[in-house]
Amino acid sequence: VGEFDLIERIRARVTGSSSVPVGIGDDAAIITPTPGQALAVTTDSIVLDRHFTAAWSTADVGHLALAVNLSDLAAMGAKPRWALLALTLPEGDVAWLDGFLDGFLGLADEFGVSLVGGNISAGSLNIGVQLLGEVDPAIVAHRQGARAGDVLAVTGTLGDAAAALKLGQRAGPGLQSRLRRPQARVAAGIALAAEVDAMIDISDGLLADLAHLLGSGLGARVSLGQLPASDSLVEAIGYTEQRWPLQLGGGNDYELLVALAPDRLDSATASCRSLGLALTPIGEFNDSGIIECVRPDNTLMEIDHDGWDHFKT
Amino acid sequence: VGEFDLIERIRARVTGSSSVPVGIGDDAAIITPTPGQALAVTTDSIVLDRHFTAAWSTADVGHLALAVNLSDLAAMGAKPRWALLALTLPEGDVAWLDGFLDGFLGLADEFGVSLVGGNISAGSLNIGVQLLGEVDPAIVAHRQGARAGDVLAVTGTLGDAAAALKLGQRAGPGLQSRLRRPQARVAAGIALAAEVDAMIDISDGLLADLAHLLGSGLGARVSLGQLPASDSLVEAIGYTEQRWPLQLGGGNDYELLVALAPDRLDSATASCRSLGLALTPIGEFNDSGIIECVRPDNTLMEIDHDGWDHFKT
Repeated sequence: VGEFDLIERIRARVTGSSSVPVGIGDDAAIITPTPGQALAVTTDSIVLDRHFTAAWSTADVGHLALAVNLSDLAAMGAKPRWALLALTLPEGDVAWLDGFLDGFLGLADEFGVSLVGGNISAGSLNIGVQLLGEVDPAIVAHRQGARAGDVLAVTGTLGDAAAALKLGQRAGPGLQSRLRRPQARVAAGIALAAEVDAMIDISDGLLADLAHLLGSGLGARVSLGQLPASDSLVEAIGYTEQRWPLQLGGGNDYELLVALAPDRLDSATASCRSLGLALTPIGEFNDSGIIECVRPDNTLMEIDHDGWDHFKT
Repeated sequence: VGEFDLIERIRARVTGSSSVPVGIGDDAAIITPTPGQALAVTTDSIVLDRHFTAAWSTADVGHLALAVNLSDLAAMGAKPRWALLALTLPEGDVAWLDGFLDGFLGLADEFGVSLVGGNISAGSLNIGVQLLGEVDPAIVAHRQGARAGDVLAVTGTLGDAAAALKLGQRAGPGLQSRLRRPQARVAAGIALAAEVDAMIDISDGLLADLAHLLGSGLGARVSLGQLPASDSLVEAIGYTEQRWPLQLGGGNDYELLVALAPDRLDSATASCRSLGLALTPIGEFNDSGIIECVRPDNTLMEIDHDGWDHFKT
């Protein structure tokens, strides 16, 4: 079907919002920001065979496209509110679009996000999402701000998505769903933003994203024995020496990684616990200028995986 | 080079703004909207061999990617302020990126737009831009709002870009530059928003975009003899019967098409003239429910081109 039929199909499934005086179907959307709040804006694209494969359900693709953007806003402590969708599609495929919207709009509804506009072009499949959110300017969290002596802590568990990629068909549903249906830590991000010195979401891998928290001269020591692992991961990969590289280098966890003063750890942990989410201290920041990974027996583990870069392999 | 080198290369060329407390390099950008203004948000992607060809300079591609988005905000009467750039690139090509930024950032500077963030992925070339602007909620222009009896008017001239596409290598520099370096009518959009009943930018072709201004039962009569043509177009295509189809059906003009009450035409025209831009009345709205194109001798012209649809040819 045609471009305008597809747009109409999207519009028919989107409900209005009082904060969106002009939504889908005009040259631009008009939205009304909340007075006193700053805007948080992000964009992330997902690409076939990079972020997902043809074996995925289109609903999973729709979920992922929004989830990676939700996670970026979570890392700022922002509440997601409005989304734009830039679809480049090989053909006007209604079944593809409907499935995609099941995943995308299902997740949008869950987080109170309004789809306000977008664009459809013909070409190689490319899914771009722009997400806008709001954040109290007094609590917005940055990547920079960690200090020597800060605790390094992470929400949830690490390594499930990497294990799902590594094991392929042999991965169980628990691991698969972490890869295909990642849960952005939005509520935890808002709660943690008031407590932490710095925050980032783990999309490229723990070590790669930890490196973004290190300013000039700052280093960190990661205690491998403390890396939180899900039951599914422990069951699938029993040996810690095989599990740690997945937890350190594998991307797509979409957990939040924070630096916080030791005396904030208890209240931050309690905030997360009230949301049903663990916050686990996994190391500390120091003045070493490097990242070290330490086994429970105090020996250092050599790391040769430095995370995902789209133009390096 | 790697993804993070490319991002650093972009960041090095972007200057800060007091409205952007957190710019490129964090999980999301933080921007400070102006109290009392509504936000206008749009996204448009451009794709190789659809919107540009491999023969174009990368600076032209960068200019076009932003210009099409500027035009969308112009059509709402909004002032563009902040942009995000979602690049999907086949490889980490520094020369390509530098040329692209020459065009993109050159145009951004011209309009006071800050590049605040974005995303780089590997894959088939795809350039997505999200543009945010601000608009006085009292004057925001919509596609809906035209009334029978309103004048139909257009800024600038029509058909140059279509002629450049049709003539290919034989098109002169005047026509080529309208195709590759379109000028979004931002200042005119802001001025016209206070005068018009409805407004749209012409991206898909005059008739296709005019159709978007027609609510239930509304029609329009276009006077072919009044369609404004540039000297370059008249020189390249002398016969009006050959020129009109290009002016009616060719896209990429990025002029503004407006519906306004007859008694607002003089002040709207004066506003545009003060910006060095013509505003030409080219027809009127009526209750016919259809669009008619009328020659100077009062005969109707049959139209078989209904504008650009990405999934129809």
